[in-house]
Amino acid sequence: MDIEQFRKAGYAAVDAICDYYQTLSERPVKAQVQPGYLLDKLPKEAPAQGEPFHEIAAAFQNDILPGITHWQSPQFFAYFPANSTFEGMIADLYAASVSNPGFNWICSPACTELEQVVVDWVAKMLGLGPSFWTSSGVGGGVIMGSASEAALTAAMAARERSLRRLAGHEHAAENGQIEVPDEIRQKYGQKLVIYGSTQTHSLGSKAAIMLGLPFRAIPVSAEDGYSLRGDAVRKAMEADVADGLVPFLVIATVGTTSSGAVDRISEIGEVLKDFPTTFLHVDAAWAGVAYALPEYRELLRLSELNEYVDSFATNLHKWGLTTFDCTLLYVRDRQDLTQTFDVTPAFLRSKEADAGEVIDYRNWQIALGRRFRSLKIWFVLRSYGVEGFQRHLERGISQCKQLAEAVRQSTTFELVTKPSLALLVFRLSPSSRSDLTNDTLNVLNQRLHDRLNARYDVFLTQTVLHSVETNIFCIRFAMGGVRTTFEDVQATWSIVEAEGEEVLKDWDERSVE
Amino acid sequence: MDIEQFRKAGYAAVDAICDYYQTLSERPVKAQVQPGYLLDKLPKEAPAQGEPFHEIAAAFQNDILPGITHWQSPQFFAYFPANSTFEGMIADLYAASVSNPGFNWICSPACTELEQVVVDWVAKMLGLGPSFWTSSGVGGGVIMGSASEAALTAAMAARERSLRRLAGHEHAAENGQIEVPDEIRQKYGQKLVIYGSTQTHSLGSKAAIMLGLPFRAIPVSAEDGYSLRGDAVRKAMEADVADGLVPFLVIATVGTTSSGAVDRISEIGEVLKDFPTTFLHVDAAWAGVAYALPEYRELLRLSELNEYVDSFATNLHKWGLTTFDCTLLYVRDRQDLTQTFDVTPAFLRSKEADAGEVIDYRNWQIALGRRFRSLKIWFVLRSYGVEGFQRHLERGISQCKQLAEAVRQSTTFELVTKPSLALLVFRLSPSSRSDLTNDTLNVLNQRLHDRLNARYDVFLTQTVLHSVETNIFCIRFAMGGVRTTFEDVQATWSIVEAEGEEVLKDWDERSVE
Repeated sequence: MDIEQFRKAGYAAVDAICDYYQTLSERPVKAQVQPGYLLDKLPKEAPAQGEPFHEIAAAFQNDILPGITHWQSPQFFAYFPANSTFEGMIADLYAASVSNPGFNWICSPACTELEQVVVDWVAKMLGLGPSFWTSSGVGGGVIMGSASEAALTAAMAARERSLRRLAGHEHAAENGQIEVPDEIRQKYGQKLVIYGSTQTHSLGSKAAIMLGLPFRAIPVSAEDGYSLRGDAVRKAMEADVADGLVPFLVIATVGTTSSGAVDRISEIGEVLKDFPTTFLHVDAAWAGVAYALPEYRELLRLSELNEYVDSFATNLHKWGLTTFDCTLLYVRDRQDLTQTFDVTPAFLRSKEADAGEVIDYRNWQIALGRRFRSLKIWFVLRSYGVEGFQRHLERGISQCKQLAEAVRQSTTFELVTKPSLALLVFRLSPSSRSDLTNDTLNVLNQRLHDRLNARYDVFLTQTVLHSVETNIFCIRFAMGGVRTTFEDVQATWSIVEAEGEEVLKDWDERSVE
Repeated sequence: MDIEQFRKAGYAAVDAICDYYQTLSERPVKAQVQPGYLLDKLPKEAPAQGEPFHEIAAAFQNDILPGITHWQSPQFFAYFPANSTFEGMIADLYAASVSNPGFNWICSPACTELEQVVVDWVAKMLGLGPSFWTSSGVGGGVIMGSASEAALTAAMAARERSLRRLAGHEHAAENGQIEVPDEIRQKYGQKLVIYGSTQTHSLGSKAAIMLGLPFRAIPVSAEDGYSLRGDAVRKAMEADVADGLVPFLVIATVGTTSSGAVDRISEIGEVLKDFPTTFLHVDAAWAGVAYALPEYRELLRLSELNEYVDSFATNLHKWGLTTFDCTLLYVRDRQDLTQTFDVTPAFLRSKEADAGEVIDYRNWQIALGRRFRSLKIWFVLRSYGVEGFQRHLERGISQCKQLAEAVRQSTTFELVTKPSLALLVFRLSPSSRSDLTNDTLNVLNQRLHDRLNARYDVFLTQTVLHSVETNIFCIRFAMGGVRTTFEDVQATWSIVEAEGEEVLKDWDERSVE
């Protein structure tokens, strides 16, 4: 494809995307295809000769779009939103046009420096303290692909910091690398333990599996709103220490996936004073952007975050208007990262890095190469402004409040937890049927979810809320889509209500039989 | 930004990219900015109110482009190419428009199934055996962000497979998960060792650091063309086993970064028969795409790869025409991945996955979320065709042969290694000055590189070739850019020649003094 063919194909792509968004709300939210639909359709080998691009673009419309679940649909309420904005798309296009692997400053100075700028913009917008700002020269932020990557990165950094502390020398003079002595690694390497709660996202247990270390999923109580408490952490750690194990990482959550719970950061932080080998990471993948709203900072424990936490991650690619992928990981001490990830062979040296004048972000992360993701944050924040970003968040929260009111008014449904920002967790539980046990309600709600799942015009995810009291099967309704109106919320809610009635009718009929 | 504003901004972005490519060869390849150029220029906080998009787009031109090192320039010969094609850019735009995190099939069936299709297209184009095809149902391929991510993934899978083997049960009935018993993990977890050579990319030592395990950089010989040999691997492993350690992973390389060397896969594979806890990963980040040329398969040891290797990674985003990021990781047994990475909490379950009908790629990788990267492979391979892809590779190889001839004719430069595909490694070494020691030549070549590095119209990277014989400082000239002609190669070579003369002149003058 030459430049003029690209102009034509590029315009056509922009037009096709405009058409897509114009028709998005008419499309069923979930892909209406069966497993294998595309495998059966496409050739088993790449074509020998090139094909005209307009045919390839047409195939995107004909073969791919029918197999897309429309996360950008205003009626998408499953998982969490993954808002893509036009600003983000255009930024990604510009980034692809100057494509480079960005692993050090000279790879493209603009990529590194824009990242330094925008991670600080976001830090300030969220109210993170100066220790987390890159401009502090001590802490700082870095853009990653996902909250799981951020959690694994934090876990690796935490492991190394713990081992350095066990060896008695945490920091190097003049940013040199500290080797953990082999005897320390042999003695403690396999004794380290990660802590979270039963509500921690699977990124916690996955990080543990990837490091070959155990993850303790500490039980929580429904009475505490499914939050992890300090006492429970202390109890779990003391038991492990008594067994000769070494706590090295707590993953606390601000806004759990299942119900939007907020762990008690200060309680946990106080406990960790007695376990100085332990690093505290906060996963706020979904809810972290809501720190942009000053009125929610207390609820989300911002001051505790600023006081106690070693690292913090949030996804701008969920509720935060920035096209996937765009996770921000902030650390209070960048040496926690560079002591773990800095490997500089001859072919990666540069005079600017040798002189210590620049950040080479490859030393803050797992991979060497990295995309130019700061551009989309820059485009989004400049186009929306902080106030536009805040208004977007407020819309999702306000829709959630309205829906919560509808659920409270309903005689067949109940809220399982308090509404959390733009996430509502509810279940079928008819007020007239106090005879139904929790086990029965779980069965009924599983049926409700099966019925909803069989439809293509609605997409909600299930969850099971585990607590010391009981386990509750429930349904999540995640608002915050950038194109979602309350009418969209209502349309889906009406379907849920109708399906709920069907489940109850069916149950009563079977009971009669 | 509404739909019509996006149409306008999208067209404008396409036009701007056309302008960029029209003027690309006139721009100096390296960014002409000093550290801090952008930090000093941009505001310290995000704007409160949104700004008009045309101003944001203008800022990309005015503030960002001057700080871009032009990897897409036809005169970019540093590192390895990171070819971005118009097909790849448009695919990325379409992917952003339907943005979704793709972690399971129902997230967007098209994303999963297109990935299954195109990884097999590439496997067949490269001549990988059927065991590596996803359609085999046993092995398969998965798209990742970088070769370091692929190597870390392979290393984690290798560690778990080794521990399962040490525990005596490698495979589960009916794809269930096997727990490695804690006593096995305690006993061996910290005894595991990774092997590579001194020529292995830093991804090897970085994977080791990230897992908290040692990496043995086995010395190679210049006489062997810097290839890792079986005997050296055996010797290193035997020494470790005698020390109570357990070999669990060899990272062999096809096309090393420093000189394009190809490790002796079959020799290593034969040795590993005596070390059954060891997994063999081949990193062919750069050179792997050249398997698409049947005449190079023997040189690159394809049949050995097909016979001996557990996993194999190559980057389509280097020489392979597919916009960064796009690494392919192939495994002979997908259980090696799923036994390590499968974590499925309630909120991630789906009926299709429960039924075993679909692949959920999150269980083949580190992260949960993933971008729709198969689309760009599909666009590129359909637009170029296999033959177009081959012709592109041949162009780079042919330019390298021509440049090699020029170096051979030169009386001031010499080839340090044989040309490897599109990579040439050379140094200043005047044929009239046999009095210069290797140490002196290293100093002279460091000076040459410093001089080249001070210029903006040329960009070449240095390397140090370590071998049992000596260490040679040399310069790499990496061809294979999609827009590069031999005239571009010659223009840069002329600069190198002129700077080389200056270095020699300066040396002689100083010697006289």
